[in-house]
Amino acid sequence: MSEKPKLHYPNGRGRMETVRWVLAAAGVEFDEEFLETKEQLQKLQDGNHLLFQQVPMVEIDGMKLVQTRCILHYIADKHHLFGKDLKERTLIDMYVEGTLDLLELIIMHPFLKPDDQQKEVVNMAQKAIIRYFPVFEKVLREHGQRFLVGSQMSLADVILLQTILALEEKIPNILSSFPHLQEYTVKMSNIPTIKKFLEPGSQKKPPPDEIYVRTVYNIFMP
Amino acid sequence: MSEKPKLHYPNGRGRMETVRWVLAAAGVEFDEEFLETKEQLQKLQDGNHLLFQQVPMVEIDGMKLVQTRCILHYIADKHHLFGKDLKERTLIDMYVEGTLDLLELIIMHPFLKPDDQQKEVVNMAQKAIIRYFPVFEKVLREHGQRFLVGSQMSLADVILLQTILALEEKIPNILSSFPHLQEYTVKMSNIPTIKKFLEPGSQKKPPPDEIYVRTVYNIFMP
Repeated sequence: MSEKPKLHYPNGRGRMETVRWVLAAAGVEFDEEFLETKEQLQKLQDGNHLLFQQVPMVEIDGMKLVQTRCILHYIADKHHLFGKDLKERTLIDMYVEGTLDLLELIIMHPFLKPDDQQKEVVNMAQKAIIRYFPVFEKVLREHGQRFLVGSQMSLADVILLQTILALEEKIPNILSSFPHLQEYTVKMSNIPTIKKFLEPGSQKKPPPDEIYVRTVYNIFMP
Repeated sequence: MSEKPKLHYPNGRGRMETVRWVLAAAGVEFDEEFLETKEQLQKLQDGNHLLFQQVPMVEIDGMKLVQTRCILHYIADKHHLFGKDLKERTLIDMYVEGTLDLLELIIMHPFLKPDDQQKEVVNMAQKAIIRYFPVFEKVLREHGQRFLVGSQMSLADVILLQTILALEEKIPNILSSFPHLQEYTVKMSNIPTIKKFLEPGSQKKPPPDEIYVRTVYNIFMP
């Protein structure tokens, strides 16, 4: 049980970045095995290390977990990021699922055709500003706590912070009409484990560039 | 707590059918409020009944739950369909997530262009036969139990059965190379709560037809 989790994924954000965020926020050290070639993926598949032939895969506590949500839920359960009872857990789950829908747009963005990328930034901004951020702004305003649910950091906070910061890279003023989310973002970013993850030299990955996109195509395209 | 859950969705399968399956399998009676027009959706949105402006929405235990997975998880937690410990829960979660990926193809199928629908049936069949069914066949063979995880029915069983039966409607011999899954499907279908749900007159919805597709477009397209 004491071995560090090992993450199997390309050296970029994609669907694994949320897992890195949650482990880092929970103060868990982890190792990474970067997929760089189709042959490496094939080897994992042939060795029956990937239940559904896909990454992300995380070796943790003697298991080889796949499916992003499953990995996130396990880490959240183990590190007390899922609330104090079923009611809190359900709120956290609902906020997580909404935020993941928004984050999915960000994850897919670098793989769009160049012409579609600019349009998609507009779509993302609209979704964030109209559908998602007003919900969380209201929760924080009415709840009056530092966190979205209860009085402790949860999976929902970590994924929301990741999503806000990733959106701000593309749309710097995205939070301009959301004062509570602004304050929340600052406070969350100053939680020691998260602050460390945000500093240079951490295992946080940079925004996707052409090399990352090419690597992903090389590994995963038939 | 004693009121029946109320499901808000169009009168068809879509993303709500899994919720209907899980409630039925758990022996929970439920009411349905069918969305038929854009105005009805707008009314739910304007009344702040939909956290992220979307359905499925389920009124249950004083909450208005949205996000399919969140709804499923809550019902599974409440009705003991999530295993006996974190290890079982995590296996169930992993199987559920894989099966939902396959089910998503089935849910989206009626909304494809006619030319693409036939191709997509081939894709679905391949995904099922190459990626997903071998996993569950092996689990059942090695585990030697009636269910995928532990000795009790779980969320993973209900969603797998739903997915198998929906696929069989399109591809009747889809299980021909999977003897354990064939036996499992028969046994699962004979569990009294499920048997009742499979009988005519239940709240199980028929395969999507043109009227359903048109209704969905009318409600959700801008």
